[in-house]
Amino acid sequence: MTSDVAAAPYEAPAGLDGVSVARTQISDVLGRKGFYHYRGYNAVDIARRGRVEDAWHLMLRGELPTAEQRDAFTAETAALRVLPDGVAELLPAIARLSPAGSLASLRSAISVAGQAMGCKPWTDQTDEETASQAARLTAIMPVLAAQLFRLATGQEVVQPRADLRYSENYLYMITGEVPDERARYAVERYLMLTIDHGFNNSTFTSRVIASSGADLGAVVTGALGALSGPFHGGAPARVFDMLDAIGSRDNAEPWLRHAIEHGDKLMGFGHRIYKTIDPRSQLLHEVARELHSERVEMSELVEKTAVELLAELKPGRELYANVEFYAGVVLEAAGLPREMFTPTFACSRIIGWMANVLEQIKGNRIFRPLAHYDGPEAPREFPEFWQPGQP
Amino acid sequence: MTSDVAAAPYEAPAGLDGVSVARTQISDVLGRKGFYHYRGYNAVDIARRGRVEDAWHLMLRGELPTAEQRDAFTAETAALRVLPDGVAELLPAIARLSPAGSLASLRSAISVAGQAMGCKPWTDQTDEETASQAARLTAIMPVLAAQLFRLATGQEVVQPRADLRYSENYLYMITGEVPDERARYAVERYLMLTIDHGFNNSTFTSRVIASSGADLGAVVTGALGALSGPFHGGAPARVFDMLDAIGSRDNAEPWLRHAIEHGDKLMGFGHRIYKTIDPRSQLLHEVARELHSERVEMSELVEKTAVELLAELKPGRELYANVEFYAGVVLEAAGLPREMFTPTFACSRIIGWMANVLEQIKGNRIFRPLAHYDGPEAPREFPEFWQPGQP
Repeated sequence: MTSDVAAAPYEAPAGLDGVSVARTQISDVLGRKGFYHYRGYNAVDIARRGRVEDAWHLMLRGELPTAEQRDAFTAETAALRVLPDGVAELLPAIARLSPAGSLASLRSAISVAGQAMGCKPWTDQTDEETASQAARLTAIMPVLAAQLFRLATGQEVVQPRADLRYSENYLYMITGEVPDERARYAVERYLMLTIDHGFNNSTFTSRVIASSGADLGAVVTGALGALSGPFHGGAPARVFDMLDAIGSRDNAEPWLRHAIEHGDKLMGFGHRIYKTIDPRSQLLHEVARELHSERVEMSELVEKTAVELLAELKPGRELYANVEFYAGVVLEAAGLPREMFTPTFACSRIIGWMANVLEQIKGNRIFRPLAHYDGPEAPREFPEFWQPGQP
Repeated sequence: MTSDVAAAPYEAPAGLDGVSVARTQISDVLGRKGFYHYRGYNAVDIARRGRVEDAWHLMLRGELPTAEQRDAFTAETAALRVLPDGVAELLPAIARLSPAGSLASLRSAISVAGQAMGCKPWTDQTDEETASQAARLTAIMPVLAAQLFRLATGQEVVQPRADLRYSENYLYMITGEVPDERARYAVERYLMLTIDHGFNNSTFTSRVIASSGADLGAVVTGALGALSGPFHGGAPARVFDMLDAIGSRDNAEPWLRHAIEHGDKLMGFGHRIYKTIDPRSQLLHEVARELHSERVEMSELVEKTAVELLAELKPGRELYANVEFYAGVVLEAAGLPREMFTPTFACSRIIGWMANVLEQIKGNRIFRPLAHYDGPEAPREFPEFWQPGQP
């Protein structure tokens, strides 16, 4: 029996695969071309040439900045790095409850920050208030991620500096030192490449929650939860775990063959949308080579071997290295510990979430789909053994 | 330009209206018949006759309990009402950041509880571990809601009692007194009626997040965020605000006419799926009458007037009182303050979320839809004013 809606419902494929659920002007992924863009501009080119602030301005304000706008936006967003009152006191206790770099700690911290900012349902606020909260939540996500990491590893927190650009300040808050050019360059490429990417799971989550009228704190907290899943944002560190497990160059082929033959999902390979080289992986690979990271040779061998074996053992599946494969190499070269790979992803992706939410709430309609019920036919008779007695 | 997926994507209506996104054996809503069920059993009949524990057992274990199973399940779940270590200490600070009864406080608290329980991605746990966490999160949601309320209103927290059934314990933790039969009866009908209801926004959110492999703490925190939106769970208290604004019986017709003519959405009327009487509203109305609540007459007048005016001014829209309209009357008669209406909804709905998530992770496929990009055609040339300088 299915729901008795007026027309027969459209039965979407599992995971909403191939179903377009909204119109957007923010980003798009052309999976067969290996191309994606932010508001029409080649995202890889922006990431190659620009700064986080440029891409953030594009997403939030709708256009790339002029030099003047960049300076103003950089100053404006740097000033937002202050935690709202009542949050810093809670961080040590929150950090203690999960391992260092856990998205679960970050989820609790950003939830508390949303409370402290007094985020209300966007239906009860002006659009300006909501946009300003979106910018502020974006600016404090890296502060929370860095401070939680330092607390969880027994270090003093490092307060943000407003005189550093976004990428420098991020590394500074984690390591306690202003990064060199090389480290900043690396982390900034990663951050810019991962800001947005169509209706990925966490971005979709942010729009679904926002469509209920919920406040931005609720939206970000929920999206962050989605990002924590190993099928979505939780994978970059797992690529390293795989490289560690492989260990030596000689072991790459037998290890990968065994894994693929036993049906294990290889971390860092394959993507729902890309059926060719992931352009994010390509630039990250370039950056990794430029940095002469020690890991890069081993990673290249594993990538090459895996792609060959996948073509041999899973023909037609078109599995290539995805964004996560070289992400870890680049982030490690920037001085970030493995635990911080996924929190770093959260810091860039929130820019995309917020742009999507601000778009969603214009002409909003609540996401309220149907499901195809295929359990016992209703109404079932109550079983005799159920004797509820006095209600 | 749209995504270049192999086949042209299906363009779903806004809000996924009329789109079936998964198969389920948990519940279904037959909107034109005014009927909904839990696993095939008429949900209103269960709510009329049973206990929260009966419905919870049905959702979690798949079948209504025998008398023995009910006793065992009641004892088992009552024993889960203990907050995990490290949570109670954080509640006063969390409660201070938001008004009493705020779902934002509850969101932070359940997030912290998920951390303290050590919830891992379900992909890294056994199904038994995940099911056991689902039961525990469900059992502690009312404890958190009650304790946050008492803290926010300057009262000592009341520890849960394992010798009381779910509904009694809930009121006891909020008021500090074991409720009389009348109050327990009222709140229990409400709780049972609102456990599940197809793929409503928060339930869908819980499945979308779970599909990423995220841990149950992330799932519940995100779903709770969705429930906080005024288009979803945030409305029951707003019905009372409307009754207050109307004030007197004489003012009902002119107030409602003015509101409808000015395009204001009437709180407590209309539903995406129901195009006839909402069966939940019907039972809640009955319960309200049985309780001889003072508010019931005024509510009846407002309902009758609003339905007539809606038929006159919005013909063909089929707008009737929904679950929220009589919910407040019933919950108030049970001794709950207005601020606790939505948190109470969270306490019942989490039972549905957890059943849905446990179903989702069997044969899971990540929700990763597409969007129809309709912004400037890509690739756009970079504007001359963008001079990014040294990357």
